[in-house]
Amino acid sequence: MRCAVIGGGAWGSALADLLAKGSHDTRLWAREPDVVASINARRENPRFLPGVPLHPAIAASGDMAVVLDGADLVLYVAPSHVLREVVRAGRKHVSGGAIITVAAKGIEPETLLLMTDVVASELPRNAVTAMSGPSFALEVARGQPTAVVAASKTASASAVVQQTLSSNTFRVYTTEDVTGVELGGALKNVIAVATGIAEGLELGLNSRAALITRGLAEMARLGVALGAQPATFAGLAGMGDLVLTCTGALSRNRAVGVEIGRGRTLAEALSGTESVAEGVRNTESALALAARCGVDMPIAAAVHRVLFEHRSPRDAMTDLMNRELRAERDE
Amino acid sequence: MRCAVIGGGAWGSALADLLAKGSHDTRLWAREPDVVASINARRENPRFLPGVPLHPAIAASGDMAVVLDGADLVLYVAPSHVLREVVRAGRKHVSGGAIITVAAKGIEPETLLLMTDVVASELPRNAVTAMSGPSFALEVARGQPTAVVAASKTASASAVVQQTLSSNTFRVYTTEDVTGVELGGALKNVIAVATGIAEGLELGLNSRAALITRGLAEMARLGVALGAQPATFAGLAGMGDLVLTCTGALSRNRAVGVEIGRGRTLAEALSGTESVAEGVRNTESALALAARCGVDMPIAAAVHRVLFEHRSPRDAMTDLMNRELRAERDE
Repeated sequence: MRCAVIGGGAWGSALADLLAKGSHDTRLWAREPDVVASINARRENPRFLPGVPLHPAIAASGDMAVVLDGADLVLYVAPSHVLREVVRAGRKHVSGGAIITVAAKGIEPETLLLMTDVVASELPRNAVTAMSGPSFALEVARGQPTAVVAASKTASASAVVQQTLSSNTFRVYTTEDVTGVELGGALKNVIAVATGIAEGLELGLNSRAALITRGLAEMARLGVALGAQPATFAGLAGMGDLVLTCTGALSRNRAVGVEIGRGRTLAEALSGTESVAEGVRNTESALALAARCGVDMPIAAAVHRVLFEHRSPRDAMTDLMNRELRAERDE
Repeated sequence: MRCAVIGGGAWGSALADLLAKGSHDTRLWAREPDVVASINARRENPRFLPGVPLHPAIAASGDMAVVLDGADLVLYVAPSHVLREVVRAGRKHVSGGAIITVAAKGIEPETLLLMTDVVASELPRNAVTAMSGPSFALEVARGQPTAVVAASKTASASAVVQQTLSSNTFRVYTTEDVTGVELGGALKNVIAVATGIAEGLELGLNSRAALITRGLAEMARLGVALGAQPATFAGLAGMGDLVLTCTGALSRNRAVGVEIGRGRTLAEALSGTESVAEGVRNTESALALAARCGVDMPIAAAVHRVLFEHRSPRDAMTDLMNRELRAERDE
């Protein structure tokens, strides 16, 4: 199968490596010329996935036409805030029969659309699938066991994604609950900022576990209001990804939270980094969606107050502990 | 209120400290004379909670009569396998009006009873409460924010536990789902052994997140078959405690799993330790309960095969990944 991976970050590189190892004709588009050059010449992505050898059959390019022409499967692995622009830039090269998979996680600020809806609005003829789950790119590239979920309203499309990407160590499960899978991926980053703030304040692991637990509860509340299935939040794309992001190696979202918990400003915490803190960007969108549905998201609201309303991290977390943990008995 | 804490380990000491700080008349029974002596003389429990100052009003004793006589609230904080014996040793000193709280987590091997049922069988006149949730003793003793659940079929009893133990940093929520709360505490240790084995095999954080997710699913399956509420497993005593145990500081259960994953035998992994690996002991009981209910617990079964049936850790985990992760789509 001819596959196009659009996005040369860590996750795009790991997915391209997986496809190439599966003997698929794999082309990778990257924005950065140095990434294109080093993947083609040295079989490595030193900027985003240093030290990991990539499969020699990956053909990297900065030209969307070269990467997209004739592709049967297109994976969009761009950050959420540039996804629409990236899809638009190449859409005339995407054939109507191509199956699309979106690995971007987020909510578009102006429209409050999830990422598959953003793609569908730009590529209305194509079947679109969302892929999510607990999957650090580095571990996937190293061949460590990983399981993710591919969600599509078109069951045949998620089946193709499953068949194309699955290997001995990378397992893809399918579901039709696109909304649940996408919200899991978008909202976990907001909760990860919250657990980062608690870490920066040195509140300990007991409170981190409580925050993760209550965080999943508010994610599921919003999801159900938007038509998602509760079971999705108890699965890999919900609880699985949330636990990984909040307890695994320090993610960008948690790291920003930690800095803020230690007393830095948001601007200071965001400076000097290449990668993206999706949780910072998505906090406002998540709260807008929650307001539209009449759903309470106290942890996301606390993160918003700290990031954008000058509330002190300690006061916000104290309010939260006092308020939110009471909810256990009310459910 | 006069309170008796039966058990001088880390958790018993932290709970006694909490009660004494709340101005309750607090007596602590410990089996080890050196623990009794150092708590009374040095206000520290160097054997189980080294370096943490304990409240000077705690009166430690090795005499059950002294500790239990006149107590309004009795907390049993003994390991699960000695709980019955410890309750029996002092039961003639427990008044019929005393409220009992059980912090032991486990399933009695011969009877398959949960810990509150063990206590109720020895103290049939008393109202019994189970306490559980994500609560490393060290963090509670340091005053870091912690939230737990007190469960009782007698709502007035859990309300007394809540009022007596709650503080600014330690929050106690109440529920009537005793079975769910107790199973959460007992079964998470089995899943923690499984994640430890995966850690010892260096399978990575993606697979740890997947194991935790699927582990909670099988815990909830057994719970529901035994009459527990699904929501309890999504709460502090279910997901919260499981996440803490599987991702926090290395617990005894996980540590045993790690050693076994690295190739040691169970006997080697258990040697040279003071503390107890409840998960090892409870794997067999959990599977017996599951068999009685006709519930499938593939992760617990894999742990059992590794611990007691000479299955290699790598083969058992590979089987599990291949078998169990398929289940995402079937739920």
